[in-house]
Amino acid sequence: MKIEKINIDQKLKKINEHWSPRVFAEMNDYQFKLEKVKDEFIWHKHEETDEAFFVINGRLTIELKEEKVFLEKGEMVVIPCGVEHRPFAEEECEIMLIEPKETCLLYTSPSPRDRG
Amino acid sequence: MKIEKINIDQKLKKINEHWSPRVFAEMNDYQFKLEKVKDEFIWHKHEETDEAFFVINGRLTIELKEEKVFLEKGEMVVIPCGVEHRPFAEEECEIMLIEPKETCLLYTSPSPRDRG
Repeated sequence: MKIEKINIDQKLKKINEHWSPRVFAEMNDYQFKLEKVKDEFIWHKHEETDEAFFVINGRLTIELKEEKVFLEKGEMVVIPCGVEHRPFAEEECEIMLIEPKETCLLYTSPSPRDRG
Repeated sequence: MKIEKINIDQKLKKINEHWSPRVFAEMNDYQFKLEKVKDEFIWHKHEETDEAFFVINGRLTIELKEEKVFLEKGEMVVIPCGVEHRPFAEEECEIMLIEPKETCLLYTSPSPRDRG
């Protein structure tokens, strides 16, 4: 079995879309994903798992219902299972996500775009 | 519930020992650990889990029985369950590990130090 190392920056260079996470490694039944994000995502929660966010480059805001978490390069947060959140980045931001395979996203409330 | 972000560099500054991993976050039944390493660890394997290594600063070599994986800052590798490995760093290196809580280490062969 060949064990391959992974260079995060090289993987990020291959991503051209926003909000399109790419699985780059697996550990047991978990996946490591890289994603470029910009502007806001939808309000959602994960009913069966926590979710870890790492900022590789840029700044990410994770809006919660009663506060906001501001993350810069080299910072991370774990959003607990069941907590509604909405990621937002004013400028393009590169992040790593860790979550179990087949994590489901439960859409929880309309975003401004949905309201027209 | 207060959700706290974590700054990796600030956590690393508090570590003064080598080969002494510190848990800085948890996600479901997994732990995120930071560790400063230098020189060689022992040959070992984990019989029930894969293990993820990220290099935050410095260079880490992971010796396997038939090859070596050389990791630099911004690189990671997943060592599969059951694969014998020995981490080594010529100069001090800062790493992040991800593995399940209560991961056991199975010591697999004598290191040069053990041989006297």
